[in-house]
Amino acid sequence: MAELHICSPKGFRASGVYAGIKSKKAPDVGMIVSDLVATAAAVFTTNKVVAAPVVVGRENVAGGKLHGIVVNAGNANACTGKQGDLDARRMCHLAGIAIGCDERLVLPSSTGIIGHLLPMDKMERGIAHAGHALGRDREHALHFSDAILTTDLKRKEAATRFKIGRETVTIAGVCKGSGMIGPNMTLGTPHATMLAYLTTDAGIPASALRKLLAEASEKSFNAVTVDDHTSTNDTCAIMASGMSGAKVNTPKSTKAFASALDEVCQSLAYQIAADGEGATKVVKITVKSASDEESAKKIARTIANSPLVKCAMHGNDPNWGRIVSAAGYAGVKFDPDKSTLRLQGVEVFRNGKPLDFDAEALSKKLAKEEVDVLLECRLGKSTATCWTCDLSKGYVTINADYHT
Amino acid sequence: MAELHICSPKGFRASGVYAGIKSKKAPDVGMIVSDLVATAAAVFTTNKVVAAPVVVGRENVAGGKLHGIVVNAGNANACTGKQGDLDARRMCHLAGIAIGCDERLVLPSSTGIIGHLLPMDKMERGIAHAGHALGRDREHALHFSDAILTTDLKRKEAATRFKIGRETVTIAGVCKGSGMIGPNMTLGTPHATMLAYLTTDAGIPASALRKLLAEASEKSFNAVTVDDHTSTNDTCAIMASGMSGAKVNTPKSTKAFASALDEVCQSLAYQIAADGEGATKVVKITVKSASDEESAKKIARTIANSPLVKCAMHGNDPNWGRIVSAAGYAGVKFDPDKSTLRLQGVEVFRNGKPLDFDAEALSKKLAKEEVDVLLECRLGKSTATCWTCDLSKGYVTINADYHT
Repeated sequence: MAELHICSPKGFRASGVYAGIKSKKAPDVGMIVSDLVATAAAVFTTNKVVAAPVVVGRENVAGGKLHGIVVNAGNANACTGKQGDLDARRMCHLAGIAIGCDERLVLPSSTGIIGHLLPMDKMERGIAHAGHALGRDREHALHFSDAILTTDLKRKEAATRFKIGRETVTIAGVCKGSGMIGPNMTLGTPHATMLAYLTTDAGIPASALRKLLAEASEKSFNAVTVDDHTSTNDTCAIMASGMSGAKVNTPKSTKAFASALDEVCQSLAYQIAADGEGATKVVKITVKSASDEESAKKIARTIANSPLVKCAMHGNDPNWGRIVSAAGYAGVKFDPDKSTLRLQGVEVFRNGKPLDFDAEALSKKLAKEEVDVLLECRLGKSTATCWTCDLSKGYVTINADYHT
Repeated sequence: MAELHICSPKGFRASGVYAGIKSKKAPDVGMIVSDLVATAAAVFTTNKVVAAPVVVGRENVAGGKLHGIVVNAGNANACTGKQGDLDARRMCHLAGIAIGCDERLVLPSSTGIIGHLLPMDKMERGIAHAGHALGRDREHALHFSDAILTTDLKRKEAATRFKIGRETVTIAGVCKGSGMIGPNMTLGTPHATMLAYLTTDAGIPASALRKLLAEASEKSFNAVTVDDHTSTNDTCAIMASGMSGAKVNTPKSTKAFASALDEVCQSLAYQIAADGEGATKVVKITVKSASDEESAKKIARTIANSPLVKCAMHGNDPNWGRIVSAAGYAGVKFDPDKSTLRLQGVEVFRNGKPLDFDAEALSKKLAKEEVDVLLECRLGKSTATCWTCDLSKGYVTINADYHT
């Protein structure tokens, strides 16, 4: 459904404008505004170093209502002390004027370099401009998508439509994230600078929205890692306008909504892995039959974060010993003598022993845009999936000289 | 004391020979033999996937005595099932014949690719050859140093001499390690393929030796990380011949021995960081005034393992936000508002706020072979130090195509 976008759910407008925060000339201030006050929920970084907009965003979304979201890219407003806090609040104040609402109904986000004060003169003009530029069509949605990007090479959007009774409900999302990606968000929190914004025209109570967003994040954004560096700014927020007329208030409608939300969040998370800094492929790691859910997640994530595994994937190298050994240091129950490992469907290791396989043929199978790693533990019934990307010289190029 | 080597402590011989296990023509089988049965202790990887030589080595050192150590590079004998276990035991058997001792007094080690059976015909000839080639001089010690290397670019040796009463005691060590480095060894265990062997002519009970080795490893090998990938094969073993006549049996002599052991182990650990795959510099991360020792270690290691921090170090980029944000996701007590960060002695962050500094001048200071990162937490009295290296394209080059 390529035509759907962040303004496809009824009752939302968006914009993205250039305010001069980014060093390159590209949109860097964006807004999403709900026509009416929307039911809202958000999850934020678990980092103990929390950017000012996250502190303010947590306060403002606590009541379960938002009128709009204001974002800048190019500066994270993190490690900026009291002035940073004042600046994040001023972003909300300025957006509140543009929207015509109380500033406490605005969620602010920032992404970019840490430790620099926001250029508030530019922000002021940018937010006013973004307020005037709001619109409902695809073009406006794309401007917003662009305004939140930093090192991302591609826009990241997803949306789906489904029925609740006779009403059509739309859930749409947009996100950014390429490096400093290891989200670990809770209703307090995520990792990496990952910013994701979702809109829907379903009607849903704030408490249910919070719970469903936390669950969906856990299986999507919190399951993607590029470098496992949990950002100070990670934020995923959703606004529900209720304007479709459909209500999420029964087990059946809740299930339908949850399933659609999972679909959108997982698509966005996948796009983050695919656009990881320097990435040439997505690596999907599935851990099956682990002793418990935490162990399954821990093993999948430990494999995903091993630089040796990520380099092997970059080189199309079926060096499966790196994968099995990573599972072994995950710090949870794991027994190689009971385990089986498959790469792209080819079994390479079973019950503690290497299997014969055609290394050259498997190397060719690994030279794809998506690589499947499947580890069966045979210790229980829990499954987890984690998405990551390969580690290339491009990652080093991007990150050895981002600041200066 | 450049002239000291692994055979400088009285009562030890060493050798290193080419047996055809490595793909390049270089020594790949080595032995260290004690003239008499030596008191011995060892720490091994905590990985749940344990290479066959580690299983056998644990058994053989359990009694606190060893007569010799036999090592091969080029093949890790890990994930090799029952045949791997038999092969590791056969290494001991063959070395026992060469030494003229019970095979249960031999500690075996292997390092190299995971998941391939050892070529036992080559091993058989190699170990016999290594037995014949044993000698006490520097040349023989160097052959051993070379025989244990894999992707290492440099030999790693350290030694020191001190007095216990009127006797001169020597502690010498040799190690290998460049990638798959994140040792976490205990008396059960370490991380990464890190192999380290120490010899001393002090007389010391096995129980004391075990305790002192574990403590020394914790402050040295377990505090170095290249890629935090805990190997299946990490081993650090020490043999004490007692032939100096000096006994470690008083608080004073124990303190002197512990201090010398720390010196040797820390020198070796430092050399591993300096020779990390693709490394151009050592990054020493010191965390002060943390709430407790575990938190200090966790913060230091989390900073050391952040690919973003390591890339910034490679680019001489004073992007300190990556360091502070890594401390924030270490999962332990940390309060940016109480913290101070110094890079090469230059204060860049204090009490939650960025400080003005000359970025260009600091970038020049970062372009050194050693970079000091000092984070003060002001939450308690605990300190920890961790050594790592920068992340360069060289790491990717080495690891994207090691197998095929």
